[in-house]
Amino acid sequence: MVPYKIYLEESEMPKAWYNLRADMKNKPAPLLNPATLKPMTFEELTPVFCDELVRQELDNDTRFFEIPEEIREFYKMYRPSPLTRAYFLERALDTPAKIYYKFEGNNTSGSHKLNSAVAQAYYAKKQGLKGVTTETGAGQWGTALSMACSFFDLDCKVYMVKVSYEQKPFRREVMRTYGASVTPSPSEETQVGRKILEAHPGTTGSLGCAISEAVEVATSLPGYRYVLGSVLSQVLLHQSVIGLETKAALDKYGIKPDIIIGCAGGGSNLGGLIAPFMGEKLQGKADYRFIAVEPASCPSLTRGRYAYDFCDTGMVCPLAKMYTLGSNFIPSANHAGGLRYHGMSSVLSQLYADGLMEATSVEQTAVFEAARLFARVEGTLPAPESSHAIRAAIDEALKCKETGEEKTIVFGLTGTGYFDMTAYQKFNDGQMTDYIPSDEELEASLATLPKVDL
Amino acid sequence: MVPYKIYLEESEMPKAWYNLRADMKNKPAPLLNPATLKPMTFEELTPVFCDELVRQELDNDTRFFEIPEEIREFYKMYRPSPLTRAYFLERALDTPAKIYYKFEGNNTSGSHKLNSAVAQAYYAKKQGLKGVTTETGAGQWGTALSMACSFFDLDCKVYMVKVSYEQKPFRREVMRTYGASVTPSPSEETQVGRKILEAHPGTTGSLGCAISEAVEVATSLPGYRYVLGSVLSQVLLHQSVIGLETKAALDKYGIKPDIIIGCAGGGSNLGGLIAPFMGEKLQGKADYRFIAVEPASCPSLTRGRYAYDFCDTGMVCPLAKMYTLGSNFIPSANHAGGLRYHGMSSVLSQLYADGLMEATSVEQTAVFEAARLFARVEGTLPAPESSHAIRAAIDEALKCKETGEEKTIVFGLTGTGYFDMTAYQKFNDGQMTDYIPSDEELEASLATLPKVDL
Repeated sequence: MVPYKIYLEESEMPKAWYNLRADMKNKPAPLLNPATLKPMTFEELTPVFCDELVRQELDNDTRFFEIPEEIREFYKMYRPSPLTRAYFLERALDTPAKIYYKFEGNNTSGSHKLNSAVAQAYYAKKQGLKGVTTETGAGQWGTALSMACSFFDLDCKVYMVKVSYEQKPFRREVMRTYGASVTPSPSEETQVGRKILEAHPGTTGSLGCAISEAVEVATSLPGYRYVLGSVLSQVLLHQSVIGLETKAALDKYGIKPDIIIGCAGGGSNLGGLIAPFMGEKLQGKADYRFIAVEPASCPSLTRGRYAYDFCDTGMVCPLAKMYTLGSNFIPSANHAGGLRYHGMSSVLSQLYADGLMEATSVEQTAVFEAARLFARVEGTLPAPESSHAIRAAIDEALKCKETGEEKTIVFGLTGTGYFDMTAYQKFNDGQMTDYIPSDEELEASLATLPKVDL
Repeated sequence: MVPYKIYLEESEMPKAWYNLRADMKNKPAPLLNPATLKPMTFEELTPVFCDELVRQELDNDTRFFEIPEEIREFYKMYRPSPLTRAYFLERALDTPAKIYYKFEGNNTSGSHKLNSAVAQAYYAKKQGLKGVTTETGAGQWGTALSMACSFFDLDCKVYMVKVSYEQKPFRREVMRTYGASVTPSPSEETQVGRKILEAHPGTTGSLGCAISEAVEVATSLPGYRYVLGSVLSQVLLHQSVIGLETKAALDKYGIKPDIIIGCAGGGSNLGGLIAPFMGEKLQGKADYRFIAVEPASCPSLTRGRYAYDFCDTGMVCPLAKMYTLGSNFIPSANHAGGLRYHGMSSVLSQLYADGLMEATSVEQTAVFEAARLFARVEGTLPAPESSHAIRAAIDEALKCKETGEEKTIVFGLTGTGYFDMTAYQKFNDGQMTDYIPSDEELEASLATLPKVDL
């Protein structure tokens, strides 16, 4: 019998990240300089990002990047993460499907974000930098980064969307405990912040504004760089540790999954989870179904356009070709999930455009119903983001119940919901609602895409 | 090299709980009926507690209790818990000591409390009961019990101290997500609640009052019983799973600890952790130092009296012989830790009285300094309670640094601090203070001990 939890031995943990781009026939489109519309060069990117991370970002050919010894040691703090057989969930659903989930929430940041945060902090330290800046909304990425920076003794400046800063004091305090400075955004500290505060006094901030502040500080303070927790190809590279561990754990027991499911915001978790499996598919060695799950309120893959767009609402970052809803698309505020990004990783976008991956969207109330069931039977209260994958996995398992098929389903449980209890409260009180943007709304947002004709 | 984390195989998990009392020459003193001052009988206890749990409570002779199959299955949801070698902490302290900690926080309740909650819920279900009642302060026990009751489809009524209910809405929502009803105490639902509200309108409640309400409801509603998360011998029995796993993991690598350290509130975690090691000591098979760590603000072992006292401030429960500060001792409100219980498990009290265990007390600010260091280097933000053990372990490791001794130190990391960020905020803001009760204060409290002369 397969155990409830499969833990790899430390000696079995991945020693290299896998760069899926090396095996893609159609490479993801390059980042473009918004002024020249030419591909961004190493020289243009290194004032913003660490040198080695830019190298990783631009490298579509190297198949494996060795994980530096220091990062592998840090990984041992909270990895290997368990691959769990969801026996309890299977029983609750009375399904013949076999369900597994890779749980990335067993660390204080509460999610998979730490996998890339430690890599980015390490390379910043190795480059001799003093510190890094970033933005955070709900706070998962900021928490992960503050943990990594504390470990490598790097300064960490987090610009936290003001409304979250005030409404989520707990995440803020975790970051402060790890020594990060956390500034509500917009702030008086930056030009862009002052400008926004002047134009909109009393604004509660936005992720786009926080990005712009973090980038301004990184590029104006000597010895600082900006770091980003998702979307970028380098982040997907680091997150491949999720998929590599998952595959090693399955291989140990001779298990071949039929369907692999992940929630998709910017794409880092999904891209990391599917990487080695998609690699086999691209090489013709095996076939799998991949399903990206996004919220119906922010449906970039299922209803967006595959086009060049700004990565941030502030339009200070390079252009990326991706499935997008338009960089000024604002998901409904009633949506609790953290998958509110208007675009999608270029790597995943290309795979989706090539028909190698499916996508589906799910509504918020149904997501929380799945989350509650999962919490009750599997004992872990999931993050709203992760619960999108749970919903889709349950739906696939229920299809198996109808057809009698014994499919093997693997999904990514990216994190815990311990800092998301306000959303659960809304659900417990029966106050949760769904929101699906209208076609007109999406059309209006997509009409503002930059005109890029290559 | 010993790995960072030692996980037992599922087949190596304990199949029986170990009842330390069976190996104690001096048995813990019996619970007394406060009216007759005679030992409580099975018949007197079963209207309040489940039958099988009363049997376990009264049994000082049976060495092993088989863990029922259903509970062993539930344990696989979140166990085995890792025994972690604190390499990062050792390096940060530059100590020759070898430090290990058994981490019980990898579950949604966030602590070891779940180990006993599932046992108590199971026996209630098996007895055909409809539900159970309990009290909760900070909410760890209530959360654990609500998870266990949800799994066994039992009704769970939690009386939560009103001030916590209002100030800790997140724990409350976790309990509600698991289907528990959470009532702020004192409430209008019970006689005792109404009486207190009448006498003290606007009171924010107390644990003693919440216990009284929970007991009243359990004994007046058909098909309900009351359950308690610490202090009782049955709880220590269930918590022996911690020590048994710890010992099995150490034995696997041929490691013999010199010092075993645990924080001590009611004593359930410490009693469970040390059980099999203390058993060896009692049988003359091995020797270990055991250290109970309590807050200087609530020093029952180090400054209390070994005497019969009420277990609850409401004086509705039986009398227990224990180290106590007096049941009406109220620890300073500025203390954040959850170790605010006036007494100590009878089992641990007897061991301490017999000189088989040491005790030490630590101050709050020093505890949070240890907590912050631990969070930063080991990557897990600890609960304030657990951090008492961290403080003592660090102090022992620093002594080794002075003497050059390579002692092996094992401590219990009972849980995470994710729902305790208000206390961390106070610490981060430099607002945390220490409090040590004066001799006069303790004398006054001890003067109210019931007169019991056996």
